[in-house]
Parts: sequence; C-alpha cells; structure tokens
Amino acid sequence: MKPFLEERRQRLYDKMAQENIALLMFEDAEGRRDPAIRWLTGHPADALLFLSVERKSLLIPWDSNMAVFYAEADTVIPYSQFERQPVKALREAAAFMKTPFGSRLEIPPITSYTTFLKYVEELNDFDVLCRNDGLHGATKELRLIKDDEEIGIYRKAAKITNEIIDLLEKMVCSGKLKTETDAALFIEAECRKRGCEGTGFETLAAGPERSFGIHAFPAYTGAEFATQGLSILDFGLKYKGYTTDVTMTFARSPLNKSQEKLLNLTEKAYKLAFSMVRAGASTMEIAGAVDSFFGKSKKAMPHSLGHGIGLETHEAPFLRDRPDNDRLLSAGMVFTLEPGLYDPVHGGCRLENDILITTEGVEALTNSRIVRL
Amino acid sequence: MKPFLEERRQRLYDKMAQENIALLMFEDAEGRRDPAIRWLTGHPADALLFLSVERKSLLIPWDSNMAVFYAEADTVIPYSQFERQPVKALREAAAFMKTPFGSRLEIPPITSYTTFLKYVEELNDFDVLCRNDGLHGATKELRLIKDDEEIGIYRKAAKITNEIIDLLEKMVCSGKLKTETDAALFIEAECRKRGCEGTGFETLAAGPERSFGIHAFPAYTGAEFATQGLSILDFGLKYKGYTTDVTMTFARSPLNKSQEKLLNLTEKAYKLAFSMVRAGASTMEIAGAVDSFFGKSKKAMPHSLGHGIGLETHEAPFLRDRPDNDRLLSAGMVFTLEPGLYDPVHGGCRLENDILITTEGVEALTNSRIVRL
Repeated sequence: MKPFLEERRQRLYDKMAQENIALLMFEDAEGRRDPAIRWLTGHPADALLFLSVERKSLLIPWDSNMAVFYAEADTVIPYSQFERQPVKALREAAAFMKTPFGSRLEIPPITSYTTFLKYVEELNDFDVLCRNDGLHGATKELRLIKDDEEIGIYRKAAKITNEIIDLLEKMVCSGKLKTETDAALFIEAECRKRGCEGTGFETLAAGPERSFGIHAFPAYTGAEFATQGLSILDFGLKYKGYTTDVTMTFARSPLNKSQEKLLNLTEKAYKLAFSMVRAGASTMEIAGAVDSFFGKSKKAMPHSLGHGIGLETHEAPFLRDRPDNDRLLSAGMVFTLEPGLYDPVHGGCRLENDILITTEGVEALTNSRIVRL
Repeated sequence: MKPFLEERRQRLYDKMAQENIALLMFEDAEGRRDPAIRWLTGHPADALLFLSVERKSLLIPWDSNMAVFYAEADTVIPYSQFERQPVKALREAAAFMKTPFGSRLEIPPITSYTTFLKYVEELNDFDVLCRNDGLHGATKELRLIKDDEEIGIYRKAAKITNEIIDLLEKMVCSGKLKTETDAALFIEAECRKRGCEGTGFETLAAGPERSFGIHAFPAYTGAEFATQGLSILDFGLKYKGYTTDVTMTFARSPLNKSQEKLLNLTEKAYKLAFSMVRAGASTMEIAGAVDSFFGKSKKAMPHSLGHGIGLETHEAPFLRDRPDNDRLLSAGMVFTLEPGLYDPVHGGCRLENDILITTEGVEALTNSRIVRL
C-alpha cells in the first residue's frame, strides 16, 4: 500500500461530497490521455477509473495483467467485460457502485460534444455533468502542487538529467556524438540505464541547418549535430512517470553577429525570468517581462516562456503573456523556463531548465546551459 | 506543387458544396491530433486549417518557419496573430474568407463539449456544426482508401521495415542485441539511416519477464531480451508521415508446453485471418473467426485483431468482433493483422504484419514472424 495514493483519493472524495457528485469518472485512452488515473491508483495508462462519494474506487484497466503489478484500487475489473466501451462502463459502474438514480455523475471535460450526447442519452436516469471547472479541474489543481512523494521523485529525476547534461557536453565536445541521432539515442540509452522509464517526449535534436524550427521536424535525423552555428537539443527524462524538460544549445564558433545576438538575448532573458520567479509572482507578468525584453531588440519569441511539468509534459502553471491562465506561483510548483529565439537564416537557440518553488525559496532543479564550442 | 494535395482538397470542396458547409475547420494540437492537415497541405503538425466552399485554403501554423518548408495552402498566417486561440482564429478566418453570416461552419467532432459551447457563443451569428458523421468523418473515409501516392510510400516503408526485420533476426541470433534497449535503439538508428522520420510509436521491447503485457510498461528497459521463453518486439517505422506496425516474437528454447501452445495458436490464428482477407470481407467476421478459434482452446485475445494504419498508427478499418465499425474491406486499405495471447506466468506472443488490398488481390507488405531460437 502506498499511503500517498489513498491520501490523494481522500482529498478528491472530500471534494465530491462538497459538490454533491455521486460518481466521478476518469478516462485514459489514446487521444484522451489523463494521468490522473496514474496519480490516483499507480496504474500507468489505458484505463477507466470511477470514484464514488461512498469513498470506493473501481479501476477498469485495458490490460489487467498490468494492473496486478501497478494498480491500487478497491476493485479492479477488466475493460473487456464492458466491451471496452466507456459509455457502457459508466452505466455498469453506476450499478456496481449502487449510485442512486437521479444523482450527479461527472464525466471528463475533454469528452467530445458528440460523445457527451451519447452519455446523456444512455444515462438519462442520472444527471450527467461535463464541466471545465468541475472535479477534473479540481484534480488538476491538486496535481499542480506537488506533494512530498512527487518532489522526492523530481529531485532524483533532476539528478539523472544533470548527469546526462554533463555527459552530453563532454561527448559532444570530444566529438563522440556526431549526428542528431547519436545525441538522441545516447539520451535514450543512458536514461534507461539509470532507471528512467524513458524520455518524456520525443527528443528534439536539431543541427545548425534545422534549429530554426521551434520543434524540429523530424525530431532527429542522421544530420550532423553541433557543427558550426547553433544546434538545439531538447529532451526530458521520465522517472516514475514524471518528466523533466530541458533544452541545451550548442554554439560552435565562428558565429556571426546575428547568432551572438540570439545567444546573448536568450541568456539575458533566462536570467531576467529566473530573477522574477518567487512564490506570489504572476506567471503573466514574468512572461510579459521577457516578451518586452525581446521586443526592445525587435525580436519576438514564438512560444510561451514556460509550463508546468509533472505526469504530463505540459501542465499548469502556464507562463505566458496572456490573461487566461494567469496565476500566482506558489510552493510545490515545478515548471520550465525556456526562452528562445529562432531565425530561418541564422538558426535558433533555446535555454530551458526546470524550476521548483519550495517554502524556502526557488531552486533550479536542472543545470542545462548554452555550450560554446 | 504536389498535385495530389490539391486533388485531395478538391474532393473535400466538392463535399462541402454538397453539404452546404461554407467553412470547414481542422485543428492539430497536443491532445487533439488530426493528421488531416498533413494529408491536405503537407504541413506536419501543430496548425489550424480552414477550407472555404469558395475552394480556398488558409493554413495557420504554430511554427511559420516550418510551414515555408512543408506547407501548401493558398494563404498562410502565423498562429501567433490569433494569440494561438482556436476560437478567435475561427472568428477571424471566417472574416478573412468572407464567409456570409448565418452560413454553416463545421468544427472538429473531437471538440470537447465545453469548448463547443465557447465556439457557439463566440460565433453566434453563424451556424456552428460539430458532427461525427460530418465532413471530418468524410475526410477519414477518404483517407481510408490510400491513393497512388500513399501506396507508393507504403511499399517503400515496408521495404525498409523488412530490411530491419531481417537485421533484427540476425543481430538477435548472433547475440549482438542483448537487452530490450539494444533492440529498440537499433531500430531507431537504422530507420533514420534509411530516411525514415523515426518510429511511428514508442517501440515495445519486452523480454520474457515482461511479455505478458499487451503493451509492456515501460516500453523498453535495460532488461535482457530474447533469453529463454517468449519476447515481444512491436515497432513501426514512420516514412513520409506513414507508419508501418509489426510485431516479432522471439521464442528461445527450451519452451514448456504452454508456451508452445501460445505460439502455435497465434501462428494458426494469423493464417486463418490472412486466409479470410479479401475485398468484400467483413472486418467483424474475420475478427470473430479468430476469437472463436482461440475460444475453442479456452484462450482469449485481450485486444482486437487489427487496425488500419496510415498517417495515424490506429485508424479505420478496425478489425474487431463487435458490430460498431464493422465494414467491408476494399482495395486501397492498409491494415494490420496481429493475433496475440498473453499469460502472466508463461509470457506473451504476438505476430503482426501489414496488409494491403489492391484491385488485384491481397498483399502482406511486411514479413514479420515468430523467430525460434
């Protein structure tokens, strides 16, 4: 038994009681990923989870062999018993949980409009809710503030990430990693040796010819890496489900003035952002300060300044210069700062690290940097 | 100019006129992937696409540097001009396209119920449609029958896949690939050398200790691969956007009777399924025949028999023993056949190949197999 899983479920049961939700449904499936199921039960992927206000959990995994190893829930029933149909599963879960007719059932807010109509039709003897600001949103708010278990995982994940950052610098400098593929597969192999589940997203390795793209396409190729000019290496390691997310830029001289300017502005923007990070600071203000800083040099960053990380690669808080999603930073948040500039002729650069806010202050968990060669 | 892109768009414009849709919106974003944008414009990912019944296309890419290299559309406007907000972009696209007030706009059926309400509110002077059987469904039906360009790509992708299957057998037999990570990273490196964009999904390499899972978790680790018992290697190569999808099983003797039985049943099920594939056959009947075959030996396959492949790893046709999605196979379809059995004690096995139906007959594009060591 992992007490932190039960504790997380109890916090949700409390909210269910407050909001008078009798049955709460989570779904994790291809195209509709929701790591809340892993966060609440330990089961890594592909399942439905039902929580009842009577404080019982019912997990319906696609792979029940897998559930034996990973999942903690009061009851586990294979998805095949419901023909792998979520609407049918909700119907039968409500019966299994003895949910009274007429009571409120909440389904995921990501549910498509057309599927929502099916739930409502099939469960017309219940009150089916589909809300952005409902209990799925509340679950995200809970996940936003990492608990002690999660912060422990992040410290370990960051340690491994930093080891690999150092190795990458060494291996690129000594000429042992010559191509984008060399760099990307080195990360894949090294992280698994150290107990990671893998990479949190497809590594982006872009040599000087391709670094102009925010996200290089294809993610990595047989092309040369870290030759003259600007190369970008953006990767994250997934440890016990939690991903780090860092970007190194390798800058090989001789650089022209435009390239020097991109590097200098990016480094300054990073320092500016980091100096503003503290509990109580507004995400929009920090992002806005960086956008203004770039604007003074007539440059524009084509993406946001950063984002929360956790069981998802992109989650709250979002650091962008836009009033929606603005929020105040607080202890327990883990997020990236990743200023970058991209030029179709001179290439791109980005500097990205992972930041943790604690009750004591602000920590850069990772140690990524611009490497000058 | 790639004539096949314009041809695909023209077929959709025809359908828009028939159904009286003035403006059709596609979205490809994290969590809401839709390869229709790549299929219609060549732009690989992260964009909005608007088609007007006046036969004009407007692409709104997240990364406009990338669009210069890949995209074909009448107009390209960076997403940042719409603050990367899809509802705002639809509003302004309708103005740009001079779409008359009151006319019918169609948004993606994957749009969540809560987002749908926002579209309707923001565009209350239009008739906003969100339909499963609308023009997005029609686009999927068009994509289901691969055109000559796509079949050419699949022949090349399969050729590379088969080269790598042969190499994998050789390297595993000679003991050069010892761990799950060795096998998975060998595939990553070799496919990129041959011009692939990468793998179509995270390679699943599961040694005998982990092959009981349908989809091993983590996907691959530092554990030994192809030691005594049953090991599964499930991978796909992405070539010009299209993914193959094959599974090899490596069976190292001595095997016990249960393991022999799993292998024999899986091979027989594969042959049975392949013998039934032809233009005009029902996907449900083929899948049902395999389920019955396993059932006679008191075994059950915990997943469906196969699925279409293309720009998505899983797309129509779906081969499963269930009345929804039943359809008749026809020329131009490319799909997997992948019977498999999984035992928590003895391990799992799966045999998966990619099948193309042409006007002449049925071809197994790939050459995956159960390798006995």
